[in-house]
Formats: sequence, structure tokens, C-alpha cells
Amino acid sequence: MSISLYASSVPVIKQMLASLDHLLAKAEAHAAATQTNPADLTTARLFEDMFPLTRQVQIACDFAKAMAGRLSSSEVPRFDDTEQTLAELRALIAKTLAYVNSIEPSRFEGGEQREIVIRPGTEHERKFNGQAYLLNYAMPQFYFHITTTYDILRHKGVPLGKKDFLAGAAG
Amino acid sequence: MSISLYASSVPVIKQMLASLDHLLAKAEAHAAATQTNPADLTTARLFEDMFPLTRQVQIACDFAKAMAGRLSSSEVPRFDDTEQTLAELRALIAKTLAYVNSIEPSRFEGGEQREIVIRPGTEHERKFNGQAYLLNYAMPQFYFHITTTYDILRHKGVPLGKKDFLAGAAG
Repeated sequence: MSISLYASSVPVIKQMLASLDHLLAKAEAHAAATQTNPADLTTARLFEDMFPLTRQVQIACDFAKAMAGRLSSSEVPRFDDTEQTLAELRALIAKTLAYVNSIEPSRFEGGEQREIVIRPGTEHERKFNGQAYLLNYAMPQFYFHITTTYDILRHKGVPLGKKDFLAGAAG
Repeated sequence: MSISLYASSVPVIKQMLASLDHLLAKAEAHAAATQTNPADLTTARLFEDMFPLTRQVQIACDFAKAMAGRLSSSEVPRFDDTEQTLAELRALIAKTLAYVNSIEPSRFEGGEQREIVIRPGTEHERKFNGQAYLLNYAMPQFYFHITTTYDILRHKGVPLGKKDFLAGAAG
């Protein structure tokens, strides 16, 4: 017995994108309830040279589609990353989820051994097998950007708790 | 082909604890270089009712030992969580790593199907199989507390980048 590559990746990606959407929904509700300009949240960052909330959400979605696409040898769609509002960011999450859901689970079979090349042809090129790409590279960064979105919102006073971070978990 | 429960958990836990230790080492170096009181970092938080850095590190270590112990049916050691300094927190990480490393990989076999009960006998009791406990509950929270440690240090001006978050990855 062990865990399939599909089970190690897609349900986790879906759970955490659902949590991310829930965090943004709570941000929208907080902005409305407190008459805060939502742009104060979307442009917020934890330090002057750190990415703002919009970019954190975009990068989380990037890793979500890259993991699902690369591990299943599917074409990864390009998104323009032009989102500025909470509603636009939530639409990006929905679009990412639709792509992840569109891939047949059977396409992930054997993906743990597949060679994955990051930034091919550049000085930053790196090669992984699928398992190392998922566990040691992409999933940590996916979690990083979702948690940082949470931390930015929390820092700005949006009332969030661990339950909200886990909101996407079924059951 | 698929991924063993051991490969899905222990190497990831070790990688991220090594990254966490690296983040605290950079915090120590920054405090020394800027003549900052290290207590300004260990007691820092992102919002008034959020846990400070010390507690974030302690909870990350809690999840690390709970994942390794529960998934291998090993006794999970109790730690006192009395750490206050960066050196004490780094010693806690070392103690947690030593425990994780002490468990025979073969003990994880079949752990993905094992029943895991959280807070047994309380109103918050929850049951999982090992796979769901790992992927949907414990690993997200482990990443949450490590990323939040990073975010607190970054917010306080410690010079960190994504490379530091991934510093524990081999190769």
C-alpha cells in the first residue's frame, strides 16, 4: 500500500484553493462590514519589498496549475496575471480549479518518475523527477503563498483562524 | 507505482525543519549584525491576537513529531514548550529532528490506512485514516506554522527570500 501521485497532489491542491477562495471571501465581507477600501487588502504586503496579496494569490494559482499539468503531462494554460480586485482573484482561483478538475486522474499514472525540467535552457534550469518536484519543490511553495495570503489578511485585521485555513477540507 | 507513506512524510518533515532552522539562524545573524534585541524577533507577531514567533516554531515542531509518531504507531514524546530564545528554539528543532530520525522507515508501512484519532474523548475528537491525517490535516498546518515564522521574520526586516524557505531541500 502507498499513496498514488494523484492522491498526493490533486485533492490537496483542490482543498487549498478552496481554502484560499474562502479567505478572500472573508476579506470581501470584512471590507464591506468595516467600510475598508478592498484595495487596502489587495495591495497589502508584510514588508516593503515583498509581493502584495494579489501576487501571492497569482503565484499560488501558478503552482497549482503547474503541479497538475506537469505531473500529468498536460499542457499548462498561460494566465495573464492581471487581477487587481478580490473578485478577479476569486475568478482566477475558479479558473485554476476548473483546469485542475479537467485532467483525467489516469494521466497522473507514472508521473512520479517523469522528468520535470524547470526554466529549461536558462541558467536557473533544474531537473526533478515528478515525486521530488511535487514534494520538495512545488508543494512547499504552493503552501507558502497560500499561508502568506492568510498572514497578510490577518495582519490587516481580517478576522481569520486556523479553521479558515482548513476550510477547504472535505468533512 | 506510487509514493510510500514514508516518502510522503518524513523527508518533507526533515526538509522543512532544516529550512526552519536556517530561518532562525538568519534571524540570529540579523539580530547580531543590526544590534537588534533578539527578543524583538521571538516575541513578534503579525497581529495582536496571533501567536508570536516562539509559539509558531513550537507548533511546527508539534506537528512534525505528531506526524512521524502517529503515522508509524510510535510513542510521541511530550515537549514542554518553554523555549524563549532563538538558540532554545533551534535546540527544539534539533530534538524534533532526532526523534523523527529515530523511527525505522518500516514502521510507516500500512500507516496510510491506520485510524488516527485527534483529541480523543473531547468534543473536538476527529478520526482520520493516516493518509487523510497527513495530506488534509497535519501537513497543511505544519506548512502554515513554518511559513508564518518566515512571514514574521520578514515583516520584522530579516533579509529572507524563497531560497531560504527552500534551504532544507537536498541538492
